[in-house]
Amino acid sequence: MSENKIPYKIYLEESEMPKAWYNVRADMKNKPAPLLNPGTHQPMTAEELEGVFCADLVAQELDNENAYIEIPQEIRDFYKMYRPSPLVRAYCLEEKLQTPAKIYYKFEGNNTSGSHKLNSAIAQAYYAKKQGLKGVTTETGAGQWGTALSMACSYFDLDCKVYMVKVSYEQKPFRREVMKVYGASVTPSPSMETEIGKKINAEHPGTTGSLGCAISEAVEVAVKNPGYRYVLGSVLNQVLLHQSVIGLETKAALDKYGIKADMIIGCAGGGSNLGGLISPFMGEKLRGEADYEIIAVEPASCPSFTRGVYAYDFCDTGMVCPLAKMYTLGCDFIPSANHAGGLRYHGMSPVLSQLYDDGLMKAVSVEQTKVFEAAEQFARVEGILPAPESSHAIRVAIDEALKCKETGEEKTIVFGLTGTGYFDMVAYEKFHNGEMTDYIPTDEELAKYRAKLPKMD
Amino acid sequence: MSENKIPYKIYLEESEMPKAWYNVRADMKNKPAPLLNPGTHQPMTAEELEGVFCADLVAQELDNENAYIEIPQEIRDFYKMYRPSPLVRAYCLEEKLQTPAKIYYKFEGNNTSGSHKLNSAIAQAYYAKKQGLKGVTTETGAGQWGTALSMACSYFDLDCKVYMVKVSYEQKPFRREVMKVYGASVTPSPSMETEIGKKINAEHPGTTGSLGCAISEAVEVAVKNPGYRYVLGSVLNQVLLHQSVIGLETKAALDKYGIKADMIIGCAGGGSNLGGLISPFMGEKLRGEADYEIIAVEPASCPSFTRGVYAYDFCDTGMVCPLAKMYTLGCDFIPSANHAGGLRYHGMSPVLSQLYDDGLMKAVSVEQTKVFEAAEQFARVEGILPAPESSHAIRVAIDEALKCKETGEEKTIVFGLTGTGYFDMVAYEKFHNGEMTDYIPTDEELAKYRAKLPKMD
Repeated sequence: MSENKIPYKIYLEESEMPKAWYNVRADMKNKPAPLLNPGTHQPMTAEELEGVFCADLVAQELDNENAYIEIPQEIRDFYKMYRPSPLVRAYCLEEKLQTPAKIYYKFEGNNTSGSHKLNSAIAQAYYAKKQGLKGVTTETGAGQWGTALSMACSYFDLDCKVYMVKVSYEQKPFRREVMKVYGASVTPSPSMETEIGKKINAEHPGTTGSLGCAISEAVEVAVKNPGYRYVLGSVLNQVLLHQSVIGLETKAALDKYGIKADMIIGCAGGGSNLGGLISPFMGEKLRGEADYEIIAVEPASCPSFTRGVYAYDFCDTGMVCPLAKMYTLGCDFIPSANHAGGLRYHGMSPVLSQLYDDGLMKAVSVEQTKVFEAAEQFARVEGILPAPESSHAIRVAIDEALKCKETGEEKTIVFGLTGTGYFDMVAYEKFHNGEMTDYIPTDEELAKYRAKLPKMD
Repeated sequence: MSENKIPYKIYLEESEMPKAWYNVRADMKNKPAPLLNPGTHQPMTAEELEGVFCADLVAQELDNENAYIEIPQEIRDFYKMYRPSPLVRAYCLEEKLQTPAKIYYKFEGNNTSGSHKLNSAIAQAYYAKKQGLKGVTTETGAGQWGTALSMACSYFDLDCKVYMVKVSYEQKPFRREVMKVYGASVTPSPSMETEIGKKINAEHPGTTGSLGCAISEAVEVAVKNPGYRYVLGSVLNQVLLHQSVIGLETKAALDKYGIKADMIIGCAGGGSNLGGLISPFMGEKLRGEADYEIIAVEPASCPSFTRGVYAYDFCDTGMVCPLAKMYTLGCDFIPSANHAGGLRYHGMSPVLSQLYDDGLMKAVSVEQTKVFEAAEQFARVEGILPAPESSHAIRVAIDEALKCKETGEEKTIVFGLTGTGYFDMVAYEKFHNGEMTDYIPTDEELAKYRAKLPKMD
């Protein structure tokens, strides 16, 4: 099809939407390392994991063999309410940059959670409902994941207990209220409802909380309350599996118009969006069918890929979760206080970590003032006000498009626009007023956290 | 096509998007009354209007004859960035209500302005650019219109001066910051930059402003600064013309699947969304080709259709604008302090006023606690967190669907979901905490404002 037929936005028909998720692990020669029991350092069994997670999700977590896993009809019906998401040709951005590159972005922000998180939230809620559970628990920082899970639980009439980092609970009341609209209970963490919360409050009076602490509280509540399980919005293999819907739709939309991507770019915090976006492309690469340049973009203030180590580490600060082998900065690492937005997790998806370690993808880190510059530039020509997280990918997409301008290459660049920044206006205001700063951790700081990695035999 | 083929969301192809706006005035037997010069009470001439508005927009404002006006390619290109908007079949809401009615909504919230306002903003910015102007001025309350105009001006590289009601500027900083991302200057109104602002500040020290005052400031700045014109986001004939894109897309999407609507429902403040949504359906009705039940929904706290009078009145509090014949509560009317969200204008589009007066549409008023109940019910099953304004239409759509449940009628109901409520969480929080109240103005209050209507010969 000739290029002038390519619409601004490619929407798949409902009949073209994926009916199965793609499990990239099936095509990986080097499988991601298994989760380990933190006490015994032995691989977590399904039985052990089922104390924390739903049975079906445990099966997905451990499944390194099946390339396709059917998406249940109930989930597909929910997907139809906000999917397919558009693959947008950034004609206006291309013109502004005067680049010969062709830029596309897969936009996941057109739903009330404001991001791609809903893709996995609805799946996790579905399996919890299917298992006859009463509800689920989770943690949330800024609130994107918590919002997505609230929406999903509301749809399936499940109880949803969200532990929200206290400082966010107080400073970002709007996300908190959105969750309440969907019927979730939202508790500032650390709370006095859990043992770990009481302990942390006693040891650190007046603490404003952290993601790691909220995870520990949510896990404790799930394990102690019959009929509850814990759910997590990133990092896990199952989450990347659900998020493969992003990449599958992207690939189908490109294929529909005969477009071959040269480069896939995504922001990376825990890796859920990036892992989902790249999965079918990585699959082709692993099977030797096609080649793509794949770039993970992370904040310079939280550089797990670019400056972390590939090692077993705890997934949470409270050290109650299994050990995962991943690129990590150490489970006590928290980005500096001036870091805005998400992408603040200390580790990275074990699947992506293995792929990165095998040289199948690259990673770059960017500073946040440069990220917000790109965000503003993008908003002004493409209309959408992007989330700070997504803007990491925008930054590198623009940089790559500008390289093409120098070299004259007509590369086709696809990046993931994971969400909108409507609840991030405090950060935008800081940027706008010139009050935003950058911070790159020193080698000494990183070494301090790294020294606390668990000792493995 | 059989009904089970109707997708959750109907998206038109780009090639099916409207190439011309539809001007319902061309089909009206009783034309809307002309704007009058407030001094002479004579119809405003094009020349007089061109001191305030762009020439092309004045022509559109005065055009009661041409049924179709071509949408310039530049505007169509911008529309392609966020349009077509989906026409969504509310399968989940239908199931929740257990109604035989078929419910569709046209969702205009999938753009950063969060509402349909962008449809007219981009048109008004385009004509300003075409005329070689430096910029435009406007007022904004909660900020939806100001955001839309900022986005449009950013796209065409026009200066954008927004006068924002002071209380909103201070209490709703996020919308203000979104406008700044798009490069607009945002001034709290009343300011000390204009004569009218200084006068109001002197007469009412500490005033937190009003929409009427902000309009007066914006008009003053437009008239006094060479190269600037004033733009308005609702009420005017030109705005309804631009917003006809909503109705044209809706009609095309219904026709594509052979669906015949029985009832069209929209919220009404100044009338821009409702007027746009209903226009092609009203056209068929006016030409005797089809019949539809058309319902305007307004807040009980600002009931211009249901309790106002059809008379000439000022469009602004400062009485600097032309007189318009419309259903009005009187230009000093301001909804009670407990009123949340928009739909707070004292008057109503002259086009809609004439259609309503001719018995071609109905109007109902609803109380806001009932509106928020509907909003929450909708959000929990359909996913989208609706704007308070849009939720007025949801309330009546649900009520009508429940009537169908009683009668067994399988009516096809279409309503306008004008936008999202992401910046309205303070109101949602009040509702959630049981702190939201209703207020219906007394007859005595309304009579007091009505007594101040301008005396016409």
